[in-house]
Amino acid sequence: MTRFIDNYLLYLMSQASASASAIFHEDLAQRGVPVTTWRILACLYPDQAMGISELANHCLAKQPTMTRQIDRLIEQGFVDRKNEDGDRRRVKVSLTVTGIKLAGTLIKQARDHEADLLGDITEEDKVALKSVLAKIMLRSEGAA
Amino acid sequence: MTRFIDNYLLYLMSQASASASAIFHEDLAQRGVPVTTWRILACLYPDQAMGISELANHCLAKQPTMTRQIDRLIEQGFVDRKNEDGDRRRVKVSLTVTGIKLAGTLIKQARDHEADLLGDITEEDKVALKSVLAKIMLRSEGAA
Repeated sequence: MTRFIDNYLLYLMSQASASASAIFHEDLAQRGVPVTTWRILACLYPDQAMGISELANHCLAKQPTMTRQIDRLIEQGFVDRKNEDGDRRRVKVSLTVTGIKLAGTLIKQARDHEADLLGDITEEDKVALKSVLAKIMLRSEGAA
Repeated sequence: MTRFIDNYLLYLMSQASASASAIFHEDLAQRGVPVTTWRILACLYPDQAMGISELANHCLAKQPTMTRQIDRLIEQGFVDRKNEDGDRRRVKVSLTVTGIKLAGTLIKQARDHEADLLGDITEEDKVALKSVLAKIMLRSEGAA
């Protein structure tokens, strides 16, 4: 009998995501880059300006965690924080030149890893996969 | 300029997985079913027998956590533990009749949620999505 999980979308997505990410997270660990740092850099690359709650949402982190992470990255010189219209509640975060450089290096590695992962999958299936995932994201966010 | 993350597979997979799962996990919370309980029941349904490490892998949990969870589910009467060939190291876990009943109810709900999520996606794209995700899983597990 076929197992339920082998054809269950939420199982396939979480397993594929976890096992594919684990490999890239090992590469990051070897470079001494924490996963959250990578996620923040990737979100802001190359010239995005995002608020803390938007970043937390994209990086699957809680807001207080994100605030601490951003403080750390500012200390390290990778990101800048600016108040929009002088309003303290509307803080936007973006990459510094040093941040863009580190992000660029990591993104190159991420793209190599992605190409490796999708090796024998046709161009058409790659586009379809990404478009269906984006659709599921939008639909879930709308329903949440 | 297009954002890097909008076309990055690992971002799309983790976001789609997290936001789609969040909705179903709320349904589970309303029934008082912890996420790990659901994952274990789904893995074993209807007549699978799995070891602790296999279950931990499928459920994205650590082995000691899984051992504790299984102890709890045995107390609650949802699963049974059997030694294979009397070897204590080769313990296999499977569902009791009560466990099969609860799992069946939750799986029905999970299938409804999945159908809702994939609403306007064609049958062909659904099959392609699942097959590509399974391929990524296998490829990542092989490389890890």
